Amino acid sequence: MAGNSFGKLFRITTFGESHGAAIGVVIDGFPSGIEINETLINQDLQRRKPGQSKLTTQRKENEEFQILSGVFEGKSLGTPIAVTILNADARSKDYEHLKETFRPSHADFTYEAKYGHRDYRGGGRSSARETAARVVAGAFAKMLLQQVGIEIVAYVSSVADVGATVSDQTVCLADVEKSLVRCPDENASSEMEKRIDSVRKDGDTLGGIVRCVARNVPAGLGEPVFDKLHAELGKAMLSINAVKGFEIGSGFASTKMRGSEHNDVFSSEGGKIITETNNSGGIQGGISNGMNITFNVAFKPVATIMQAQTSVNKDGDEVTLEGKGRHDPCVVPRAVPIVEAMTAIVLADYYLRNKTQQVG
Amino acid sequence: MAGNSFGKLFRITTFGESHGAAIGVVIDGFPSGIEINETLINQDLQRRKPGQSKLTTQRKENEEFQILSGVFEGKSLGTPIAVTILNADARSKDYEHLKETFRPSHADFTYEAKYGHRDYRGGGRSSARETAARVVAGAFAKMLLQQVGIEIVAYVSSVADVGATVSDQTVCLADVEKSLVRCPDENASSEMEKRIDSVRKDGDTLGGIVRCVARNVPAGLGEPVFDKLHAELGKAMLSINAVKGFEIGSGFASTKMRGSEHNDVFSSEGGKIITETNNSGGIQGGISNGMNITFNVAFKPVATIMQAQTSVNKDGDEVTLEGKGRHDPCVVPRAVPIVEAMTAIVLADYYLRNKTQQVG
Amino acid sequence: MAGNSFGKLFRITTFGESHGAAIGVVIDGFPSGIEINETLINQDLQRRKPGQSKLTTQRKENEEFQILSGVFEGKSLGTPIAVTILNADARSKDYEHLKETFRPSHADFTYEAKYGHRDYRGGGRSSARETAARVVAGAFAKMLLQQVGIEIVAYVSSVADVGATVSDQTVCLADVEKSLVRCPDENASSEMEKRIDSVRKDGDTLGGIVRCVARNVPAGLGEPVFDKLHAELGKAMLSINAVKGFEIGSGFASTKMRGSEHNDVFSSEGGKIITETNNSGGIQGGISNGMNITFNVAFKPVATIMQAQTSVNKDGDEVTLEGKGRHDPCVVPRAVPIVEAMTAIVLADYYLRNKTQQVG
Amino acid sequence: MAGNSFGKLFRITTFGESHGAAIGVVIDGFPSGIEINETLINQDLQRRKPGQSKLTTQRKENEEFQILSGVFEGKSLGTPIAVTILNADARSKDYEHLKETFRPSHADFTYEAKYGHRDYRGGGRSSARETAARVVAGAFAKMLLQQVGIEIVAYVSSVADVGATVSDQTVCLADVEKSLVRCPDENASSEMEKRIDSVRKDGDTLGGIVRCVARNVPAGLGEPVFDKLHAELGKAMLSINAVKGFEIGSGFASTKMRGSEHNDVFSSEGGKIITETNNSGGIQGGISNGMNITFNVAFKPVATIMQAQTSVNKDGDEVTLEGKGRHDPCVVPRAVPIVEAMTAIVLADYYLRNKTQQVG
Repeated sequence: MAGNSFGKLFRITTFGESHGAAIGVVIDGFPSGIEINETLINQDLQRRKPGQSKLTTQRKENEEFQILSGVFEGKSLGTPIAVTILNADARSKDYEHLKETFRPSHADFTYEAKYGHRDYRGGGRSSARETAARVVAGAFAKMLLQQVGIEIVAYVSSVADVGATVSDQTVCLADVEKSLVRCPDENASSEMEKRIDSVRKDGDTLGGIVRCVARNVPAGLGEPVFDKLHAELGKAMLSINAVKGFEIGSGFASTKMRGSEHNDVFSSEGGKIITETNNSGGIQGGISNGMNITFNVAFKPVATIMQAQTSVNKDGDEVTLEGKGRHDPCVVPRAVPIVEAMTAIVLADYYLRNKTQQVG
Repeated sequence: MAGNSFGKLFRITTFGESHGAAIGVVIDGFPSGIEINETLINQDLQRRKPGQSKLTTQRKENEEFQILSGVFEGKSLGTPIAVTILNADARSKDYEHLKETFRPSHADFTYEAKYGHRDYRGGGRSSARETAARVVAGAFAKMLLQQVGIEIVAYVSSVADVGATVSDQTVCLADVEKSLVRCPDENASSEMEKRIDSVRKDGDTLGGIVRCVARNVPAGLGEPVFDKLHAELGKAMLSINAVKGFEIGSGFASTKMRGSEHNDVFSSEGGKIITETNNSGGIQGGISNGMNITFNVAFKPVATIMQAQTSVNKDGDEVTLEGKGRHDPCVVPRAVPIVEAMTAIVLADYYLRNKTQQVG
Repeated sequence: MAGNSFGKLFRITTFGESHGAAIGVVIDGFPSGIEINETLINQDLQRRKPGQSKLTTQRKENEEFQILSGVFEGKSLGTPIAVTILNADARSKDYEHLKETFRPSHADFTYEAKYGHRDYRGGGRSSARETAARVVAGAFAKMLLQQVGIEIVAYVSSVADVGATVSDQTVCLADVEKSLVRCPDENASSEMEKRIDSVRKDGDTLGGIVRCVARNVPAGLGEPVFDKLHAELGKAMLSINAVKGFEIGSGFASTKMRGSEHNDVFSSEGGKIITETNNSGGIQGGISNGMNITFNVAFKPVATIMQAQTSVNKDGDEVTLEGKGRHDPCVVPRAVPIVEAMTAIVLADYYLRNKTQQVG
Repeated sequence: MAGNSFGKLFRITTFGESHGAAIGVVIDGFPSGIEINETLINQDLQRRKPGQSKLTTQRKENEEFQILSGVFEGKSLGTPIAVTILNADARSKDYEHLKETFRPSHADFTYEAKYGHRDYRGGGRSSARETAARVVAGAFAKMLLQQVGIEIVAYVSSVADVGATVSDQTVCLADVEKSLVRCPDENASSEMEKRIDSVRKDGDTLGGIVRCVARNVPAGLGEPVFDKLHAELGKAMLSINAVKGFEIGSGFASTKMRGSEHNDVFSSEGGKIITETNNSGGIQGGISNGMNITFNVAFKPVATIMQAQTSVNKDGDEVTLEGKGRHDPCVVPRAVPIVEAMTAIVLADYYLRNKTQQVG
């Protein structure tokens, strides 16, 4: 059973190889009558695309999308929404040398092991190019969530060992977008830039952490016991290329705390029950409690480096891979809209799932 | 859409409240003709149960299971396997005081918000009692995996700030079980015991990390792009009570590494392609590469403490919750078989999923 | 991927072999706060059970059910509802002769071919005993549908070539239950009885048709394009033992009509849009239109006859099967509550599915 | 939860409105390494398209498909296969008069009731145009089935009250395609032609039955208890536009037979266990038994007629719909490749599902 669909009620299926004819997504379960905001789709695609600044790869990708179905007179029909993005002309010859060779820490070897036959050009299906389709789907999910007031903001909270200090209460898209690295802490942002620039010159790469906050999520979203809200968020994030870790609320730090300091005490504020701290990250027992949902996503340094590396070919013979061409010294800034997109998709799905809890 | 099922081809559905008549599980998709090892089921249930040592709660639970279907003459039929565990006599009156009150960092408030009507006795469906059903299902998954030589070992790698040093290559069940805290590093184990004993006296609790390694997993398990093997493992772990974080391979530490140090160089060993390091944690592009699968699971300190705490009732009025009764000062040792069980369930499912990749 | 679950949002999983420890069902997705009517469950089980009259087998089955979970203080919790029915003491020896032999038009041969290992006692999993679990689940579905006013009535509309004349508008449970064969047309009922009695004496069996009508179904239930409401009803019915055909509305007869006579003309009645005829059977384009949903289900004569038959054993050698013991000369009357149950399950599921069509 | 996907392991998702930009399908779960036969796709699309003969509508549709993903160097990659067919220029103005009006026995009213907002041009999503996407997916399924020798032939077995006599053993594509009505019985075919031609002149329509046979299906395909093979086939067929009934093997006729005549006696032929008759239609207990799978599908006369009809608009006011433009007097011949396609999709899915039944 293949795994190219995500979500149950708000369900997306992505398709496409990085150097095939097109990539795209079908969204099934998008409710009818919602106004479609193409500007939002375009804006998020621009935030994800390569070549935005000196910090990212200078490779060009086509980001023009076409909505093939599911929208009529500017509003959703309740039928499947299919969106495609044509791939720019692929220079397949650039990849001939990878036909028989496995790049370290890429998916070349495992795709070969699983499928036998693979599209070796630019990683094929395993390329991060696929995440453009997720960003499109995420924009649709955001349109749905806007109907009920839910908002999502992600940002870079660390690059290598440079961390940032940001308020989950007030962080906003505008502040994030002011920074080339998408870190709204100005000092940290500037330090991160320097690090990335320096590693770029070495032909090397850096990782980092994207933090995400979802605000105004009503209490009640989440489906015990296996489909706990943070479990699905975790899966969504771990399905993004280069992600190695996920933590909700207090996360790994909680393992060093005592229960008495970790517990979030309930109190009442203006008739609404709240918690005084938020180690729970807005989710208790797998269900949202109305507080901010907060989590961190760990991105490894990407595997494509501009340095010579040793590897093997199909026959197991040692080969040397030259570092050449263009690369992303740090993809974490470009990962921000992808994290937002996957968050929006999960919340839209769970919003719809929760509607089936009441009859009449 | 409710969330009490897990897995696609090896699919489990658990049911039951902690103080209802019974808990149980139905496993659909267990292949026919596999010999059923009831000793293994019993052994894993014993490892999970409360009251194993002074380090865990002295509460008694019934752990006698009954297989109702799917097994005939000692072998699986290929039909659904239903297993129930009756609950011991519930002293419901012990819980009357929780009828209208929300315990801090428990699921009382969110279940109330979501369902309106809830079983307040011992957490009801949100109780960790439910994980006994997972352990049963996990034992069945282990039986399947044994057919193909896959083995899984989990252990406690840290409690609070006490960490252990353990080899992923050689760690084995026997060594884990020698330790009361299920940490096969003797020095660390003894230090962890002390910490837990000390916090128990304070009526407080501690968290920690469970590390898991799966060995002899063939290359090729994993379903891009959304059902990457580590994404599903992450969801499985995050669905366990008290889990706040998950990391595969190098995990959060990878965010501070350079690509050139993080990349796992391929080489050839006895005709088999291996990687010289294993920052990937045995998974690349979401598909197993034949190396050990390794990951960490972060458990928060459990919320039930033996100290008075402030909270609110349904009406938002402040109440004080007394700390009384029995509690688990640190559930991490008991979580070890649960982590193993969920790992086995994921691997059994993905083993079956991968079989549909080839025709003929 | 095994097939023991049905429905998406109102999702049932049945388990159990006819001569194993128990059969049962888990219902996931039953909304919280609904009052549980155990009398209804019991009543439907009584209508399905063997030995109700001289027209059905005199075999006794235990029909006492136990609700293990999901219900608290008489109301649903929104958590999985597990129900078991213990099997009466199985006299397994009665079935020794079937260990190696395939009964004609039973599932013995195909289960052997598929699973290798099978429970040959009384058909095992393929026994109609399994439908008791469906009847239980159907009673729960009816409880949900009662909240929104939907009602379902099924009845026997033909046995062999004896047909009945019944009004879909007025037929009701009380009238159906007055008849031993569950046919509310008195003359037809009495003729059917005679036929069944006569065939019983021959040790033979008869088939027939169950007709079902669902009233007060709101317009809008159904999920194009694959999950059309009548497609799912068809699957539900065809999954019942001994069913060979399904038709919605005008059904097979429509193939002999002209479009101009078949089309259902719309008109307006008291502000509501209706159709003047109902060849559509209440469903157009796969979606309910607010008219009565009507369909027919064809049951073959059951395969167990009290006559000697030729067959083969595992090795393909010819054997003779004696006709002995007790049998049902016509199961169609007992199929009525099963058809109702599966109808209720589909409608409950589609009712919930339709709730996800609107935001806010 | 929307319903635009079909199948579990061989899973298709179709999209598109008849007068939108494009229709298409994504196939997820198609195994890797299978040679792609574009000629077969094209051939089946040609068999389905309008305007093939004087018996079908003269409307033109674009049938040029484009494979966007999942195929590389002529072979499948194991990744999702997306295929689109652009719609010819839509003359939307032709449909302005249907904006507020509900055509009898079409889906206009029910789509309005369910979705609120609908694409009224040519039926939008409810148009049979969508079945072109199914035919594409069916061609891929046929490629998979060819690997294991399964073949599928469908043909028109009746139009109105004109029936045909055809052998399930020998009927073949070439014979079917010789006939304009796709009925391989020459006499019946010629009579059917006359009837269709006559009704066409009246501006009216006729229905009929498509019969389908699948040969060389191995014993063992089918998933008890809900996903019985014939239950899924039934759902697949009932999801096709204009289908009102489905019967497997002896079907509705079985209701008039006695068990002793209906039972299929087993015997042995060349070491293989067979049944001497095939009332079972090749399926017993929901699992294929190795005999031919045979079933009938009832198509109503299509709703679009060239006669004036009475109906209502959104406000419930009576309106008259003129019969004008082009129409299909009998779609049954064009339904033949659609029935084949859906059969192939079900069998491909169940072939893969059955692979998960054995370990190792």
